[in-house]
Amino acid sequence: MAIEYITAGESHGEMLAGIIKGIPAGLGVDSRFIDGELSRRQLGYGRGERMNIERDRAKIISGVINGTSIGSPIAILIDNAARDRADKLTAVRPGHADLSGVIKYGFSDASPVAERASARETAMRVALGAVAKLYLKTFGIAVESRTVAIGKVRAEALDSYTDINARADKDAVRCIDAAASKRMRDEIALAKERGDTLGGVAEVTASGVVAGIGSYVSSDLRLDGLIMREVGSVPSVKAVEIGDGIDGSTVFGSEFHDRIYAAENGKYIRMTNRAGGIEGGMTNGERITVRAYFKPVPTLANGLDTVDIITGKNVKAAALRSDVCIVPAGGVAAEAAVALALCSALSTVLGGDTMDEAIERYRKKRSAE
Amino acid sequence: MAIEYITAGESHGEMLAGIIKGIPAGLGVDSRFIDGELSRRQLGYGRGERMNIERDRAKIISGVINGTSIGSPIAILIDNAARDRADKLTAVRPGHADLSGVIKYGFSDASPVAERASARETAMRVALGAVAKLYLKTFGIAVESRTVAIGKVRAEALDSYTDINARADKDAVRCIDAAASKRMRDEIALAKERGDTLGGVAEVTASGVVAGIGSYVSSDLRLDGLIMREVGSVPSVKAVEIGDGIDGSTVFGSEFHDRIYAAENGKYIRMTNRAGGIEGGMTNGERITVRAYFKPVPTLANGLDTVDIITGKNVKAAALRSDVCIVPAGGVAAEAAVALALCSALSTVLGGDTMDEAIERYRKKRSAE
Amino acid sequence: MAIEYITAGESHGEMLAGIIKGIPAGLGVDSRFIDGELSRRQLGYGRGERMNIERDRAKIISGVINGTSIGSPIAILIDNAARDRADKLTAVRPGHADLSGVIKYGFSDASPVAERASARETAMRVALGAVAKLYLKTFGIAVESRTVAIGKVRAEALDSYTDINARADKDAVRCIDAAASKRMRDEIALAKERGDTLGGVAEVTASGVVAGIGSYVSSDLRLDGLIMREVGSVPSVKAVEIGDGIDGSTVFGSEFHDRIYAAENGKYIRMTNRAGGIEGGMTNGERITVRAYFKPVPTLANGLDTVDIITGKNVKAAALRSDVCIVPAGGVAAEAAVALALCSALSTVLGGDTMDEAIERYRKKRSAE
Amino acid sequence: MAIEYITAGESHGEMLAGIIKGIPAGLGVDSRFIDGELSRRQLGYGRGERMNIERDRAKIISGVINGTSIGSPIAILIDNAARDRADKLTAVRPGHADLSGVIKYGFSDASPVAERASARETAMRVALGAVAKLYLKTFGIAVESRTVAIGKVRAEALDSYTDINARADKDAVRCIDAAASKRMRDEIALAKERGDTLGGVAEVTASGVVAGIGSYVSSDLRLDGLIMREVGSVPSVKAVEIGDGIDGSTVFGSEFHDRIYAAENGKYIRMTNRAGGIEGGMTNGERITVRAYFKPVPTLANGLDTVDIITGKNVKAAALRSDVCIVPAGGVAAEAAVALALCSALSTVLGGDTMDEAIERYRKKRSAE
Repeated sequence: MAIEYITAGESHGEMLAGIIKGIPAGLGVDSRFIDGELSRRQLGYGRGERMNIERDRAKIISGVINGTSIGSPIAILIDNAARDRADKLTAVRPGHADLSGVIKYGFSDASPVAERASARETAMRVALGAVAKLYLKTFGIAVESRTVAIGKVRAEALDSYTDINARADKDAVRCIDAAASKRMRDEIALAKERGDTLGGVAEVTASGVVAGIGSYVSSDLRLDGLIMREVGSVPSVKAVEIGDGIDGSTVFGSEFHDRIYAAENGKYIRMTNRAGGIEGGMTNGERITVRAYFKPVPTLANGLDTVDIITGKNVKAAALRSDVCIVPAGGVAAEAAVALALCSALSTVLGGDTMDEAIERYRKKRSAE
Repeated sequence: MAIEYITAGESHGEMLAGIIKGIPAGLGVDSRFIDGELSRRQLGYGRGERMNIERDRAKIISGVINGTSIGSPIAILIDNAARDRADKLTAVRPGHADLSGVIKYGFSDASPVAERASARETAMRVALGAVAKLYLKTFGIAVESRTVAIGKVRAEALDSYTDINARADKDAVRCIDAAASKRMRDEIALAKERGDTLGGVAEVTASGVVAGIGSYVSSDLRLDGLIMREVGSVPSVKAVEIGDGIDGSTVFGSEFHDRIYAAENGKYIRMTNRAGGIEGGMTNGERITVRAYFKPVPTLANGLDTVDIITGKNVKAAALRSDVCIVPAGGVAAEAAVALALCSALSTVLGGDTMDEAIERYRKKRSAE
Repeated sequence: MAIEYITAGESHGEMLAGIIKGIPAGLGVDSRFIDGELSRRQLGYGRGERMNIERDRAKIISGVINGTSIGSPIAILIDNAARDRADKLTAVRPGHADLSGVIKYGFSDASPVAERASARETAMRVALGAVAKLYLKTFGIAVESRTVAIGKVRAEALDSYTDINARADKDAVRCIDAAASKRMRDEIALAKERGDTLGGVAEVTASGVVAGIGSYVSSDLRLDGLIMREVGSVPSVKAVEIGDGIDGSTVFGSEFHDRIYAAENGKYIRMTNRAGGIEGGMTNGERITVRAYFKPVPTLANGLDTVDIITGKNVKAAALRSDVCIVPAGGVAAEAAVALALCSALSTVLGGDTMDEAIERYRKKRSAE
Repeated sequence: MAIEYITAGESHGEMLAGIIKGIPAGLGVDSRFIDGELSRRQLGYGRGERMNIERDRAKIISGVINGTSIGSPIAILIDNAARDRADKLTAVRPGHADLSGVIKYGFSDASPVAERASARETAMRVALGAVAKLYLKTFGIAVESRTVAIGKVRAEALDSYTDINARADKDAVRCIDAAASKRMRDEIALAKERGDTLGGVAEVTASGVVAGIGSYVSSDLRLDGLIMREVGSVPSVKAVEIGDGIDGSTVFGSEFHDRIYAAENGKYIRMTNRAGGIEGGMTNGERITVRAYFKPVPTLANGLDTVDIITGKNVKAAALRSDVCIVPAGGVAAEAAVALALCSALSTVLGGDTMDEAIERYRKKRSAE
């Protein structure tokens, strides 16, 4: 059964709610793991004060008995510590949903828009993504991420893809390259000083995935499209790249495509992975690599020019919150997005009412590679 | 009702089939317009011989009576002129679905994979996208595209966004910048001489869209995610960018976000459009701008190293077809993808059983901006 | 946007959760109305003790600010007063999900099955259905129900279809025919005395619906199918009938079909409504009539023969709970199911981001009849 | 992957089209089997002349190579022999979609409605259902049907459920009870003489299904609801019953529920099957039994009172076509509907890219019963 999810909740409401459906029975679901993922999302140099107020905790209210999934929908709640709703927000903030949201929903101020369009929503996606990660982990699949750029500062390529999260989580901006991390923090400090903000790039990797997940047979089954949709729906993401898709568009075919060789064990090997683990809309057995490009945070301390929708006058947008750069947290949200996409595509292929069934089916898939 | 589509058909089968569902009654559907779109897809310097054989024609077999939609599903057929199926394809081509497809579906050769994974599928998507464009055109929305890069050659930014398709379609590589076009063709000629291939970038624009299409309220309703999915599911697309998403990740917030000003008529204006017409997952009334990054064609005249899946020996991949660069055609397919995504999101908001209803509802939306 | 919902929660977990998505902004959502619906579900002669313990209350945690919907998903929680999970349930109860659930999900006892398969789930469906009813009420559509049969006792046909709920809710078995109600209660008392249970029939009506909701153009858009699915997924429902569908299968066409006449105002009238308000998968402007056939409660005080899945011995099924007849409550759940189906089909036709838009569109639909 | 389908095509257009998606690779798809199913739909005493004109043939245009499915969408075309579209149809026929369709889609006559709302659409559903039956047959599942009532004449209960289709197809009204068949034909002859029509009841059975298909965990996963939707969306079906759902609502629980006993092989047996093979929204391993209640054909030779939508005058509805009773054909369509529902639910549980995988997974499911 395809795994699906839905989230609900406003930024300063009492709590967030989310439901993930289709997890087979028999999956160990430890709420501490989910809490750990939630706290990973709350880290990061350049975050505003709210991050200090809240310490998100997932409360699982259904679908899990004695720490094990029972096949029923898993509902999760996360309390909002901050519940002071904004007063009327009429100086609509450029780069946010404010103005279009007010027009669309007929509001006289943008606060109900800001409440739901807030990146606070990703807390729930991270919680549901954590369940997806537990599902994937059962098959030996790890979804991890790291910051690869903040503003103009880019990290070096990795020598090794092991323990990405363990290494990234130690760093204040989740960058594995220490020198780049230093320059990123400097860049953030500079932006803060300017009353400005920064974006950047997070790279999500999924390793250990068997070949043949997703499919070319129908556009809605292609895994690349599915991943782009999930990652592209994380607030602030304006571009999504699979493998070396952007650079790859500039080079010759002979410089891009990953040649295939016979391995000694009768399997196949590739020496490069420019395709980012996906060919023909399917996994090819290599590491999946996805890059999410985040725009700079749209709320600037030094408010942008805008219009007050009530007075119709040109004004400065207020600074509701003071994150300078959300790329480190955004990477964790993008991880959740990739995990949810992959989990959905994989569960479609595996089916299975129990994890035992799913695991055996995966093992067979693995041996057929 | 949300507009949805499905395609079927193999590259060398008798014909392709597609169905688009949810088009209201009362839309003029002229098959000559669809044929025009199909022939736009077949143009392009750097295409192989097949393009000369076939002259695609759409045959509408349902949902349209006397040239007007009746609210029923619209089914379209396109004959395949070339019906000579490949012999066994065991030297699986890197960059294609071949190897993973064989593993997934348990084939002993990759020809059934190649048949369906072929970009021939996009012919049907262009036909259904043409119906979507007719729907959008009724509201004054135009979806157009142009080539912005082939290999390392990039076109200049546009001075004007009017008549993009009319201008691009005159050019052999669908590039509006004549000087760049010349260099692009040179680059393609060079690649051909090398037995190599090229990718590039197509930019799709949608102008005339009212604010508030798509929504931030749920991740699956975000228009950016939806567009990324549709465009990202066009074969060979490895990255999708909304607005200046990639460059935007490198600059300060003050350099990126599109400030809002009061217009004389009581409406709002922006002087820049770095957001590419989408903020908070919704249209903001500006031109939608989407860039699709295409990898180089994976079938090289000078075959890549690979493995024969039967013998297990390292061999060279055969050159099944000889396109050197498909970016011009790819842009037309990406246009169709954007049209289908936009049409789906818009129809969700408008509902409507008849075009008259839909048009009046759109007009009201427009006046509420 | 199509209105959709999902529920989660176990019978003796901490709480139930549900989310309804797609309600436009601007709908008044009063939690007291939802609570009223929840208490209607808890009434009924023949219910067990649990009904006395719990007094269900809906807690709206998102999507509503100051009593008005904001277009975002509406999440609702309902606390479970009874949280004492059953001990191991190995004597699987015939007529329940127990045995198949254990086989499907690989459990060693049926308690996790019983937790989710419980009709307790319908509490959340009634809560979400209450939101759907508020949406429908805005258009003048009322969804109501009454008990038409319990066991072999059948109520007389109604003289008038006004105020059905007001009249039915006064009666202990929600039957509007007082004499039949008396005999129904006697029948329930007899069943209770026997250690037995009863089923029956509830009739749901929806009045005030404009013509043309649902569609014949595609099987998944037919309103009759959609209603049957929603009502047919209420636990214990084994048959669903639209209009006089069952008797209608026995008579001549001339005795069944509702003739159409010209009304003085240029509209159309029918003197009969055997079609139950749906022709060709669409509403025809007449009252929608749906009958849900409930099987007897499968848990009998006088336990049925069954097998203990651990010992493999023939045993008697235990009596977990002691409802003798749930038809009165079942009718309320079926009401919610019809409301959810209708609300989904109607919202697909209307679209609309705000209730004002939806209402104006509906008004236009009405004037086109 | 869930198996899904879509149909398109008008009654007198050039052809019908349909696509079924999600069939794994490796299924033998013989178009003669599909043609056989199509001809079963065309049989039946009481059918009009059109049945003699057409001899439906399925043309598979994709998804099948050398008689075997390749995992890609399977598209099928069926030519319409009769292509003479009705002239304007303004005397809207009671019992048809005509009037509501005209209102909904803004037509000035009902012929475009009649074209698509026609039961001709079920030809394609029978063709796609035939593919579903081939899929199910691989697992030993047979979906069959028989006429159980025409008008007031009811067939006796069956002594044996073997070879239902083989026995029913020999009979002019697809009734296995020869005496009842004779009376049914008499009844049809009488109706014809009266210029009238008849409905009736078809019973569909699915045997050989493993326990645990469908699920109680979410209302949209319940197999009973899914079957009711598919069968309820067959034109003219006004009620759907699972097992003895209607009679079951009148009896005591002790008279209805199917007791469970230990079998000698460690499995479970039931002596009765009043639940019709579905408990808790899941299969329980017993034969699935579904009854579809058909209203009388709404086009009467002796036209019903109606209104001409142009003149606004009371007139008689014209007799477009002259079927007196479509229950025998309707049963075949209902069979297809059950096959499609079951195939979708089963494929969700099994997943699988190849039939070999699916078969092995099913075998494991069987051994876990």
